[in-house]
Amino acid sequence: MKILLRGMTILPMKGETVIEKGEIAVQDGKIMTVGSMGTAPVDFEPDEIIEAAGMVATPGLVNTHTHAAMVLLRGYADDMMLMPWLTEKIWPIEGRLTKDDVYWGSLLACAEMIHSGTTTFADMYFFMNETAQAVKESGMRACLSRGLIGAAPNGEDSLNENIQFIRDWNNQAEGRITCMLGPHAPYTCPPEYLKKVMQAADELGVGLHIHVAESRTEDHDIKKQYGASPVAHLETIGLFERPVLAAHCVHLDEEDINILVKRNVGIAHCPQSNMKLASGIAPVAKLLNAGARVSIGTDGASSNNDLDMIEETRTASLLQKVVEEDPTVLPAHRAAMMTTIGGARALRLEDQIGTLEPEKQADIVLWDWQAAHLNPPHDPFAHLVYAAKGSDAHTVIINGQIVMRDRKVLTLDENEVIKQAKRCAHRLVEGTNNN
Amino acid sequence: MKILLRGMTILPMKGETVIEKGEIAVQDGKIMTVGSMGTAPVDFEPDEIIEAAGMVATPGLVNTHTHAAMVLLRGYADDMMLMPWLTEKIWPIEGRLTKDDVYWGSLLACAEMIHSGTTTFADMYFFMNETAQAVKESGMRACLSRGLIGAAPNGEDSLNENIQFIRDWNNQAEGRITCMLGPHAPYTCPPEYLKKVMQAADELGVGLHIHVAESRTEDHDIKKQYGASPVAHLETIGLFERPVLAAHCVHLDEEDINILVKRNVGIAHCPQSNMKLASGIAPVAKLLNAGARVSIGTDGASSNNDLDMIEETRTASLLQKVVEEDPTVLPAHRAAMMTTIGGARALRLEDQIGTLEPEKQADIVLWDWQAAHLNPPHDPFAHLVYAAKGSDAHTVIINGQIVMRDRKVLTLDENEVIKQAKRCAHRLVEGTNNN
Repeated sequence: MKILLRGMTILPMKGETVIEKGEIAVQDGKIMTVGSMGTAPVDFEPDEIIEAAGMVATPGLVNTHTHAAMVLLRGYADDMMLMPWLTEKIWPIEGRLTKDDVYWGSLLACAEMIHSGTTTFADMYFFMNETAQAVKESGMRACLSRGLIGAAPNGEDSLNENIQFIRDWNNQAEGRITCMLGPHAPYTCPPEYLKKVMQAADELGVGLHIHVAESRTEDHDIKKQYGASPVAHLETIGLFERPVLAAHCVHLDEEDINILVKRNVGIAHCPQSNMKLASGIAPVAKLLNAGARVSIGTDGASSNNDLDMIEETRTASLLQKVVEEDPTVLPAHRAAMMTTIGGARALRLEDQIGTLEPEKQADIVLWDWQAAHLNPPHDPFAHLVYAAKGSDAHTVIINGQIVMRDRKVLTLDENEVIKQAKRCAHRLVEGTNNN
Repeated sequence: MKILLRGMTILPMKGETVIEKGEIAVQDGKIMTVGSMGTAPVDFEPDEIIEAAGMVATPGLVNTHTHAAMVLLRGYADDMMLMPWLTEKIWPIEGRLTKDDVYWGSLLACAEMIHSGTTTFADMYFFMNETAQAVKESGMRACLSRGLIGAAPNGEDSLNENIQFIRDWNNQAEGRITCMLGPHAPYTCPPEYLKKVMQAADELGVGLHIHVAESRTEDHDIKKQYGASPVAHLETIGLFERPVLAAHCVHLDEEDINILVKRNVGIAHCPQSNMKLASGIAPVAKLLNAGARVSIGTDGASSNNDLDMIEETRTASLLQKVVEEDPTVLPAHRAAMMTTIGGARALRLEDQIGTLEPEKQADIVLWDWQAAHLNPPHDPFAHLVYAAKGSDAHTVIINGQIVMRDRKVLTLDENEVIKQAKRCAHRLVEGTNNN
């Protein structure tokens, strides 16, 4: 499949470069050329030409931390303290989740993400075969891990399940799926368990996805138990000696930041979840200044409650400005890079995605730039980060496949997905388990 | 014109009431009945029936602080320190603004607001006849004031202009326009000037719209100059003895909060502007607990950069949770009320708008609730505040007139408005003034 996109403004996410009246040629799933009109080879014969004047092209957005199927619980339990929220609401309902629920929930999440311009997401949940199946069908790119509670009775079984999942799915779906191991957090996975996980990761040649330093309670408890901060504790047991994606990283001291930078840890900053659960504000400006691999994630939809990366990126920028008392912090182009190439770097996929340049996979979003709220057209980075809505995504290409055109998702029967997700949510809330 | 809306879920914004499969009858610009299907009188013969199954009806959102025509500067100057931003960017370009600019900029702002479900806005700017004209044509409701810089050479002229504006426009456009005097701020309007403004307000029987305690610098300077905080200083000179709409109110102590509550001051909380300019975080939870009239505003689009009240309401809620370290603060239904009836109360329009109930003006938004990101349908307040987008507004009625249907604004030629706004912005940025 050869596609030519032409006439749009291009933000390749290589610094502050802006290409007006640009052109992108796509062939065999990859970007062939990017530049001004006339850049594509004269003998390039596209199967499809997308006339994109009045639009802006960016790399697909990368959501580096979510629990996709939790969209089923969107709006089910809000405005609660963390422990009652988990113990009275989230965990009981998660105990009733079936494979069927996770399949339909993951498809609903994929539909929502495609609609708002996200092309890649990093997920940690359970029944991951079903999430992988949803990724395969939807055409999305994902980095998937089975969440592992080492302290739970099924800790060993979950680890074996995650290992088998990796064997079955890593690099599948035309290479769109990569896998990780998903040890949940230092407070749910004791060191001896984490060591088993690390060994498995090294044998399989995959990375780890873990929650780190999310809440004040975690920080306090880990310090009490191990005499070190969550980051320092994980460094001590050698966790960061392989690729790690660390979600949240809210409560960090200077030494923690040094460790995260030295070890090239991918960080998934989740500002709206951290705000909604009152977890705290991650020191993102300090992390970026220190050279850390910071990216952005939405977290699950029960603590957000959407998967909209445009809004999440805006919140990340605005929140750092006010907490640092400095409006120059996290300027628009830097925030835009954090949500694209920053996400790719956090997932160690920067050779494949995250910018618009030749030889990268063709993960491209065309944003409709004609609405009232995106006019007049001054700085396109500022518009993307401070004024755009996820719903401005007009056409989405992933791995060279057009998955959404004119705001209609082509890879899924969206009405059926919504209908089935409603059915699953209804059953879960009613408390029955008659699957 | 008689309209019957039926089949939708209704959030009247009277506490946590939810009406499923509801019905609203509209007659002569007002709401006649609100309730379940079958509530309208049997002899009610609508000119138009809107079948709204799958939608949610709320009162129109109320944006209590903006500078509408500043949409022309959206994305023109961002990520700068306050004083260079004002002196090098905003003020020079504002010095070139013409009536024509303000007219087209205000129309563009009205289009954006209608698209995102806002039906009323409170504005402070200049060339207000043009903004009033835009309000009249767009069908919106607005509370308009001429911004007054008492310390400027044209301070007296501006005051006279504001007085004439009020005489010309107060209660015009079928009552959709109300007017205020707009003394800019305590640091730009000396006490003797404010006293003249207060006298004019009392003679005309109108309120005041003023910026108060926005920045740490203002707080410091006013304390140094007058030996009192901005709020206490304004209380001393008697400003709050009439209806006042105070924007920002970021830097407040306990005594300031007491004054604002005692004087029934309408407060326009502008979280995204305060974050973007690094002004600080207003103590909204404390103000609400003390019984203050807190509402939400976007501020102008050069410090936001959009006029989307859904997003602004979400930010208000999330920001209070994290700053108070308490996820139960500002729950969804309370945030939703703040952006509707709260806005009405801040503008002293609570007898006319802000809830869906008989005898109020028919300012109604139908939100399309069928998108992936609003499913499955659990708590509708949580969906409105934590998951909806401004672009989910589907149909908007103001004063009984359908101003937007199926996302198409009916009162304006939107393409022409965008074209003219682009022309104005281009001329402004080029620095010429050949109007």
